[in-house]
Amino acid sequence: MKVGVDYYPEHWDRALWEHDAQQMKDAGITIVRLAEFAWSRLEPTEGTFDFDWLDQAIAILSRHGIGIVLGTPTATPPVWLTHRYPDVLPVDNKGHTHYPGVRLHRCYNSPSLRQFGERIIDRLTKHYGPNRSVIGWQTDNELAANDCHCEHCTRRFRSWVRSKYETIENLNREWGTVVWSGEYNDWMQVSTPLGGSPHLNPSFLLDFRRFCSDSVAEFNRFQAEIIRRNSPGKFVTHNLWGYPVTADYYDMFDSMDFASVDYYPATDLVDDSKSRMYHGALTLDLTRGVKRKNFWVMEQLSGTPGCWYPMSRTPFPGMIRAHAWQSVSRGADAVVQFRWRSARIGAEQFWHGLLDHHGVPGRRFEEFVRFSREAAKLAPLLEGSTLDHDVAMLFSHEQLTAFQIQPQSDGFDYLGNFKRLHSAFVRIGIGTDVINWKDDFASYKLVVAPMLYLIDDDIAARLREYVERGGTLVLTTRSGVKNMNNVCLPDRLPNLLTELAGVVVDEYDPVGNDRQRVKFDIGGEFECAQWCDVLSPTTAETLAAYSSEYFAGRAAVTRNVCREGTVYYVGTVLDDEATKSLLRRIAADVKVDCMPDLPEGVETAVRSSATTRLRFILNLTKERKRVAVHGGEWTSALSGERVSTGSFELAPGEVEILAAPPHRSCT
Amino acid sequence: MKVGVDYYPEHWDRALWEHDAQQMKDAGITIVRLAEFAWSRLEPTEGTFDFDWLDQAIAILSRHGIGIVLGTPTATPPVWLTHRYPDVLPVDNKGHTHYPGVRLHRCYNSPSLRQFGERIIDRLTKHYGPNRSVIGWQTDNELAANDCHCEHCTRRFRSWVRSKYETIENLNREWGTVVWSGEYNDWMQVSTPLGGSPHLNPSFLLDFRRFCSDSVAEFNRFQAEIIRRNSPGKFVTHNLWGYPVTADYYDMFDSMDFASVDYYPATDLVDDSKSRMYHGALTLDLTRGVKRKNFWVMEQLSGTPGCWYPMSRTPFPGMIRAHAWQSVSRGADAVVQFRWRSARIGAEQFWHGLLDHHGVPGRRFEEFVRFSREAAKLAPLLEGSTLDHDVAMLFSHEQLTAFQIQPQSDGFDYLGNFKRLHSAFVRIGIGTDVINWKDDFASYKLVVAPMLYLIDDDIAARLREYVERGGTLVLTTRSGVKNMNNVCLPDRLPNLLTELAGVVVDEYDPVGNDRQRVKFDIGGEFECAQWCDVLSPTTAETLAAYSSEYFAGRAAVTRNVCREGTVYYVGTVLDDEATKSLLRRIAADVKVDCMPDLPEGVETAVRSSATTRLRFILNLTKERKRVAVHGGEWTSALSGERVSTGSFELAPGEVEILAAPPHRSCT
Amino acid sequence: MKVGVDYYPEHWDRALWEHDAQQMKDAGITIVRLAEFAWSRLEPTEGTFDFDWLDQAIAILSRHGIGIVLGTPTATPPVWLTHRYPDVLPVDNKGHTHYPGVRLHRCYNSPSLRQFGERIIDRLTKHYGPNRSVIGWQTDNELAANDCHCEHCTRRFRSWVRSKYETIENLNREWGTVVWSGEYNDWMQVSTPLGGSPHLNPSFLLDFRRFCSDSVAEFNRFQAEIIRRNSPGKFVTHNLWGYPVTADYYDMFDSMDFASVDYYPATDLVDDSKSRMYHGALTLDLTRGVKRKNFWVMEQLSGTPGCWYPMSRTPFPGMIRAHAWQSVSRGADAVVQFRWRSARIGAEQFWHGLLDHHGVPGRRFEEFVRFSREAAKLAPLLEGSTLDHDVAMLFSHEQLTAFQIQPQSDGFDYLGNFKRLHSAFVRIGIGTDVINWKDDFASYKLVVAPMLYLIDDDIAARLREYVERGGTLVLTTRSGVKNMNNVCLPDRLPNLLTELAGVVVDEYDPVGNDRQRVKFDIGGEFECAQWCDVLSPTTAETLAAYSSEYFAGRAAVTRNVCREGTVYYVGTVLDDEATKSLLRRIAADVKVDCMPDLPEGVETAVRSSATTRLRFILNLTKERKRVAVHGGEWTSALSGERVSTGSFELAPGEVEILAAPPHRSCT
Repeated sequence: MKVGVDYYPEHWDRALWEHDAQQMKDAGITIVRLAEFAWSRLEPTEGTFDFDWLDQAIAILSRHGIGIVLGTPTATPPVWLTHRYPDVLPVDNKGHTHYPGVRLHRCYNSPSLRQFGERIIDRLTKHYGPNRSVIGWQTDNELAANDCHCEHCTRRFRSWVRSKYETIENLNREWGTVVWSGEYNDWMQVSTPLGGSPHLNPSFLLDFRRFCSDSVAEFNRFQAEIIRRNSPGKFVTHNLWGYPVTADYYDMFDSMDFASVDYYPATDLVDDSKSRMYHGALTLDLTRGVKRKNFWVMEQLSGTPGCWYPMSRTPFPGMIRAHAWQSVSRGADAVVQFRWRSARIGAEQFWHGLLDHHGVPGRRFEEFVRFSREAAKLAPLLEGSTLDHDVAMLFSHEQLTAFQIQPQSDGFDYLGNFKRLHSAFVRIGIGTDVINWKDDFASYKLVVAPMLYLIDDDIAARLREYVERGGTLVLTTRSGVKNMNNVCLPDRLPNLLTELAGVVVDEYDPVGNDRQRVKFDIGGEFECAQWCDVLSPTTAETLAAYSSEYFAGRAAVTRNVCREGTVYYVGTVLDDEATKSLLRRIAADVKVDCMPDLPEGVETAVRSSATTRLRFILNLTKERKRVAVHGGEWTSALSGERVSTGSFELAPGEVEILAAPPHRSCT
Repeated sequence: MKVGVDYYPEHWDRALWEHDAQQMKDAGITIVRLAEFAWSRLEPTEGTFDFDWLDQAIAILSRHGIGIVLGTPTATPPVWLTHRYPDVLPVDNKGHTHYPGVRLHRCYNSPSLRQFGERIIDRLTKHYGPNRSVIGWQTDNELAANDCHCEHCTRRFRSWVRSKYETIENLNREWGTVVWSGEYNDWMQVSTPLGGSPHLNPSFLLDFRRFCSDSVAEFNRFQAEIIRRNSPGKFVTHNLWGYPVTADYYDMFDSMDFASVDYYPATDLVDDSKSRMYHGALTLDLTRGVKRKNFWVMEQLSGTPGCWYPMSRTPFPGMIRAHAWQSVSRGADAVVQFRWRSARIGAEQFWHGLLDHHGVPGRRFEEFVRFSREAAKLAPLLEGSTLDHDVAMLFSHEQLTAFQIQPQSDGFDYLGNFKRLHSAFVRIGIGTDVINWKDDFASYKLVVAPMLYLIDDDIAARLREYVERGGTLVLTTRSGVKNMNNVCLPDRLPNLLTELAGVVVDEYDPVGNDRQRVKFDIGGEFECAQWCDVLSPTTAETLAAYSSEYFAGRAAVTRNVCREGTVYYVGTVLDDEATKSLLRRIAADVKVDCMPDLPEGVETAVRSSATTRLRFILNLTKERKRVAVHGGEWTSALSGERVSTGSFELAPGEVEILAAPPHRSCT
Repeated sequence: MKVGVDYYPEHWDRALWEHDAQQMKDAGITIVRLAEFAWSRLEPTEGTFDFDWLDQAIAILSRHGIGIVLGTPTATPPVWLTHRYPDVLPVDNKGHTHYPGVRLHRCYNSPSLRQFGERIIDRLTKHYGPNRSVIGWQTDNELAANDCHCEHCTRRFRSWVRSKYETIENLNREWGTVVWSGEYNDWMQVSTPLGGSPHLNPSFLLDFRRFCSDSVAEFNRFQAEIIRRNSPGKFVTHNLWGYPVTADYYDMFDSMDFASVDYYPATDLVDDSKSRMYHGALTLDLTRGVKRKNFWVMEQLSGTPGCWYPMSRTPFPGMIRAHAWQSVSRGADAVVQFRWRSARIGAEQFWHGLLDHHGVPGRRFEEFVRFSREAAKLAPLLEGSTLDHDVAMLFSHEQLTAFQIQPQSDGFDYLGNFKRLHSAFVRIGIGTDVINWKDDFASYKLVVAPMLYLIDDDIAARLREYVERGGTLVLTTRSGVKNMNNVCLPDRLPNLLTELAGVVVDEYDPVGNDRQRVKFDIGGEFECAQWCDVLSPTTAETLAAYSSEYFAGRAAVTRNVCREGTVYYVGTVLDDEATKSLLRRIAADVKVDCMPDLPEGVETAVRSSATTRLRFILNLTKERKRVAVHGGEWTSALSGERVSTGSFELAPGEVEILAAPPHRSCT
């Protein structure tokens, strides 16, 4: 369990470094991330390198017992590079160059970026590879899918397409270019999607988005190889940005040792916007699922964010600590706060760090120190602990992209609907793993596979096998619509999943924001929206039927027994209460414990190791909350007090961590 | 009376064609539109032509008794053409090329489009002109006004301007370029409107919009000439898009035999958005007015539309049939459903056809078949029947354009205000012809000429003559403001219409959304908005006066007797109830029958021939409605039952068609 | 006291000129502004000049006793100039040329604009300098800060930067370019801010905005020099546009003799939008403060504005006169109505003048004539009168710009917050001078210096000196944040002002629209928003504390005694009522009279001379208002009636002007 900060010594007078290092040490900091935007200091002009300042900063920190994570500086190509080699800069689909501003001023496919990027990474890793204080590497910063239309991207996209489809005939057939006379005669006619209209052939657009994602994954791999060559034995990670997700993180991290995330929970804690409330839990679960193991928070919110956008609320009292513990509870093995000092210069002046511009420790700093001390105390308990869940949710970057290309109805949103399901689990205290839909999921009791819009024989077969061997699967509307090239499948929905689900979609109605009603067989009437499949069960039984409009009485939610397993099909987008109710029922069926009375905004998670089971309970709201626990005796890992079955109060922003022997199944 | 579908055999395996043709025949389909986007299949590479596939498709359909309408494929220039001859692509006013996307990737003035367009149309029409199965032609698809700033458009616009004004001095004077030093010294200085600001000289902008409209009308004429040369005796039509109207349809159709329309009524049937509810009726009346005769629906909604935009509601039960009958009721002699099969490929996958992606007939298909069978049964009755109205509304594309260039006040909208008047007629069951304001209107009992903002001596004289000979005319605010070059007229409003109206506008107040009140002499206080003329009647009498603000008590609506005729002047934009009340009063004055108790959302129309009078009554809502009929005995043309004076219920989406002898004036 | 109109004889038939001049004379008009957009008439083609028409127009007007203000025509470069010398046209940050449209089609740094601008101004001023009817000059029209990225601007910006910072090292240090590797190696790498992202280094952006402002100030100076050379003894002014303020008017007017303003008060008089209601008062006070003396209104609203945007309400009865008197009450010595006749041609057809398109005088014209006659009657009383205030508000264009570059929180807005303070003074009848923050303010009893976000030793010292000598100063939140290069200062807020204020900002919360509460020591609980400083008073006393959220009980408003003076610090943005209440209390402390019972929307101001004191009371609403006056005997300067202490009613739009001996302190 490590605690750290992001630090930019190059922004500050050297006279401060020693003082900073001492203050960090006193605050319990053991790691510092450095240099990820410092290209112009590491290579001030083309081909001249200066590592002295960084040597000196590392030496000072090292003397205070602090380990260093170094970032490769490719996220911010320096002025001399972009000015002399403008192919570094991306070009949008109208031909406008994206000049340096708030970063992102680089095309991953630019030959000059590759050439000069390779050189600076090579020099940097050769220089610091042997340095014992350097414990690992971060590639670049918050990589996002390229969206560039420069000549290099155009050429590479052509090769990408050619390598996938081999012949123009295949390309035309698979993309369905015959529509609107879009057929190609020659590879040279293939370009990136250019305006006019953004509404182009969806097969073309999906492949372009895949190419963009592949470009960034390849760029990350390119960096990892250099680092591993020159700095063997040190870890390589990358810090992902949670939302919006623009690239396939599973691909992007195939070359990484573990995932890191930049975690900036909303500071306003607005109670009635539930969907925002549980945003962070999903971000952290997604991150843990990227490599299916514990991760780092490489940037943790330390003050009001804002800069180019208006600043938002300052974190409420307690929330610096509570959100740090939230990260740990969901699998973070290191929490690195962004940033040590708030910048006095540059465009990020108001993205506040632990210290304000004046550098005098205040409330937020003290909260962090409290967390840091507690983390040190709990480190032995946390050592080797992981999250171990019975439920998996299958996440797919390709579905996300396909739905962005063709929004299905007003309000229909892959991420939003995914989150609605995920947050229902959070609200009833059930831990879920969010994993790549291409990964193995055989070991879970329950698999939720929402909106499998693009589908192929492989995933269909894997789901079938899982169910037939006794698994429980939840499917939803808009599944089985298309093949992987974004072309509609020829059979009745859900097509390849029809037999598994035991239903066919008789017709559907994209109801959008025109809210409908649904009634469960066991009682309870709820709202649904966005989309209504009108279902004809074949072998399934009906769990809920619509109770509004012309489809009243028709099946909306079904359950099908399929050999040893069970498949639920949810033919609409249920509201929060209905989702919670349905998932509680399914959890009972598969014998997964839940905490049905968890108050709104209180989150829980369990980390366990060979020796201990730690239940985290976090009040992430501005109100006092009363929490009930069942199942026996616990010890508070924070206070050392005993806690028995019953209930206790959590102040706003308060955290409890209950320890028990590893296999005691308490809730 | 013909029933058909739009069909894209080139998107489907040839193995399906025979099956499709048989299924069409069974469904009562007698016409199919083909090939309007198939350029890349008809001319796969420059100069190589392939008509075999189309020959074969036509042969199969023909064997099943189906007649063919062929579209010229110029709406979608193929990739080889746009790639090698980029002058085909339009250029926006910032110099950005409009690349292929959702169609519209062609400049009507492009020499290459003309050259290659002429060749493909020539080949196609020579090949299929003699084909007996081909019954007629559709030019291009949903032509819209060009908005291109390429060198060819610039050059042609210069010529257009020069030919209109002859000398630079005339141009400067008529456009009033002296304002802000915009005077031209040389024709070469004249360009299309380029940014910077979109707010340019309104005379210049209006002429540019005329040029854009002329360009597309000329392009349509160019196509019609080739078709007529090579395929004499076959009809030539074009399928217009109802809203928004971007080109002058009266010009665009001067070269056509009859008008066709692509009719996509709103699927949500939302009750409280009245203005959308009666949208379809206006679209159909506008279409009938284009050539002042019956028309075709070349694309009729068959399922939820959507694609690049989120899908909207699936048509409610009954609505596929009801909207098809609505088209017939307002003058359609053919209803061609868009489309047979929903596309599995390309950007229009979710613009649903009669058959879903899986191809299994469902509810919507069955509704269509019901319509098709009924249409076949009623065909003899419908034969030769037309709509014969006492009321005309004068529509002007030039007014529409001028108001778009200079919005008058918040909410002021030519189409919206036109529709408010039209829908008031619909809601009281009065049929109206919507005709070109340049057409003859002498034969009508009542002429409504809203917002004659641009005016000249000719229209003023024609209105005067109509009134003096006994006609009744309704004028509104914002009439007589400008000359035809978009320059303000020098006299008091309504300028050339002052004597006719018997009022002068003392002053006006663009009240926008600041709602005002108006009181009628016969009682009733209503709201008005957008604009308030403060009127001084000279010879007119006051029918309504304002009852709010500083103009309270001043005349708002007047009536003037002018020799044998009567002129109403409505100096504000009345709300729906006020409009309905005023029009009912005027209808009574001119002895036009109305159905004042028609329930909201129920529409009616009468088609009559030498032998029969058919009153259509359509419930286009989701609720049951009770309809009262008066005036005697009828026979239901659908059920054969007798219907007498009294009332009957119509289920949601239900249709009744009452037949009577031709001159029985029942309501 | 002068009354005039803006007139465009070149838009009208010469036959009308004589008639117009006579009608002007009859209406009491003594000045006319001419020719500011007439370049294409003065120089119809390159190098050919035609002043005959203008000679003739001036001669006619002159014969009717009317004096002429001539505008230089550089605001509208003619077509021959922009067509042949396209460097005249600005280029945006994506490289798009800004073509002629609604004016603004000129780059102030264009060599061709300078060359041809110099020639036309030189010719014009040589020709009319000796003309006795020409009484003065207006430069250009509504100059705004350049925002051009052409090669000339790029080059000049580089020079500007170089001249400010001298070395690249200084530049890098002062701008903090080390952040995100933005360091420059060479001056040639410095460009104007180009897209990509608009969110660039704030120090860079602030300097670019200064450069843009300097460019226009320099352009104005360039014009003034030519005019003064050729037309000595005549005044030179410029007509500024009130909102939004895009350039530093204090710089822009350093070369002018007095300020002029184009005054277009909102016509809707909406009661519940208080902030808009008092907009005009601030515009006029700002204008008076530009040169700290009386000013001209060069364009005064005469009818509904609108053109490229929808027209808004026609001015309510009385408002033409009331707003003209409002201008006079706040320091206008001339009111020039825009415009004489509403244009029949061009893009400004619906920006109405005194006469409508038909030219027949109506209600608005008669209101103007009433004002004109009254102004003539009161001229002797007004002669030499000025506004003499105890309160100054310090306005800073640089703060405005810096806040635009980095919005602080949702809703935080420099102009809006400035206006909230100003309008609170207006609403309690306290006159304020709004002056340049760099000007001397020693003589005022009370100085309000809001949001001194950028600060340096000079202003800090001047404020300290003012206070220590007995002044009363009001400071607000977001003061002392940055140095003048937009870099955060290193000490606790308010940094250089901490000792003066007697508080430190312990922490802050950008609460945005999340409304908070504040309670005053003397009672009264109010709302605040946008920003909350949590204050720790050192030497200050607490006047108000927060009463919401985690900072409840912490100081929000403080008062500090500092030698002879007093400093108030307002740590949040108080709502209107709280602001009014606080300012009333402060006014009482400094013994400035106020009118606490002034009804909403009634404004007052005092002009006084050696012989008279005139209190203007204006009802700028649509309702009757009752106004109380105290302090003795007055004579109505309009009616001649005596008014004693007591109250009287003002009809909507009504004006009273009370005269008394100069030193009678009545309220």
